[in-house]
Amino acid sequence: MEERLRKVPDIVIRRLPLYLRVLDNLDHLEMPIISSEQLAQRLGFLSGQVRKDLSYFGVFGKQGVGYQTVSLREEIRRILKLNREIRVGLIGAGNLGAALVGYHQKNQEHRPLEIVALFDVDSQKIGQQIAGVDIYAVSELEKQVVAFQIKMMILAFPAVDAQMTVDRCIQAGVKSFLSFVPASIKVPPGIKLQTADVSLELQSLAYYS
Amino acid sequence: MEERLRKVPDIVIRRLPLYLRVLDNLDHLEMPIISSEQLAQRLGFLSGQVRKDLSYFGVFGKQGVGYQTVSLREEIRRILKLNREIRVGLIGAGNLGAALVGYHQKNQEHRPLEIVALFDVDSQKIGQQIAGVDIYAVSELEKQVVAFQIKMMILAFPAVDAQMTVDRCIQAGVKSFLSFVPASIKVPPGIKLQTADVSLELQSLAYYS
Repeated sequence: MEERLRKVPDIVIRRLPLYLRVLDNLDHLEMPIISSEQLAQRLGFLSGQVRKDLSYFGVFGKQGVGYQTVSLREEIRRILKLNREIRVGLIGAGNLGAALVGYHQKNQEHRPLEIVALFDVDSQKIGQQIAGVDIYAVSELEKQVVAFQIKMMILAFPAVDAQMTVDRCIQAGVKSFLSFVPASIKVPPGIKLQTADVSLELQSLAYYS
Repeated sequence: MEERLRKVPDIVIRRLPLYLRVLDNLDHLEMPIISSEQLAQRLGFLSGQVRKDLSYFGVFGKQGVGYQTVSLREEIRRILKLNREIRVGLIGAGNLGAALVGYHQKNQEHRPLEIVALFDVDSQKIGQQIAGVDIYAVSELEKQVVAFQIKMMILAFPAVDAQMTVDRCIQAGVKSFLSFVPASIKVPPGIKLQTADVSLELQSLAYYS
């Protein structure tokens, strides 16, 4: 695997889990090789898009044949760094936070992403658990991020103090955020913040309604 | 606008809200025309993908010039049928349901999608409100779907009875579903069910963690 030569656009990274899901759902014995056309067709992409996306990582199918399904899957997992445990924290043990933890813990396919700690400011909640995960005080954020080696944080709290809270996480070592916070939050280069958006899904469903 | 000639792939429909968001965020006075390259670049797509997506609907930019931003935006809103109020129901007034309603009601950009009724089986909840929306008994599903003219339903309840509940909605006139239910649900042709998936977002974030 050669070194990465150019910056990979975020949108390409966001498509990799889609490729991964297709490959995960294939019978590898029945389909040891998959062409870019077959992969593209299952996702409604152009095959050139698939080839271009994968070429960012030096992954090229065999001309006129395709990709080996097993090794392509392993390669994408490696690119996404899913070949290791990733410790995830979640700030905001309210309705949304509780729902997310419950949902996540029930789905084995979410491994190797492991929600290891919840944070809240409500003293009634601190010390309790949701779905087996302990709730810590937000005042302990830095301490627990370091102790648990949390690299990814889910933000599921009201917009108050959002920027300050994210800054504290970054200083303690968090590298990426999935935000459900209805506020605009800035992060420095090298840190990734993605906004979860149910409204996009609802808008596309309007077409069918 | 000519009639639709071929079936539009779901994935194309799912990309339209992305185009819409780019167009909504443009200054139309500063940028009265946008090329497929410019649109593609903002989303990390190939420009051929953009042209192909829009051509499904008979929308073609002017050769060597591009699309008129205002009319393209209106056209996409029209294609997605967002140029009318769409009444949305939500089954499951638990953690996730409450979070979704609260989030939705706070965001003006979610109009014209209007959550008009919640449903639950818990007699403690029935008759209460969340974020100003009334909670009805699931036993009244058909009656209220008809009364409110609900065309889209959000499913945010545990997997029990999921298929039966969806079947009842369809019989009463619901056309599309956004499901957070961890169960496989079948719908007949002409009805759309989309599964919300936080795990895809978390997987792509692993790359940055």
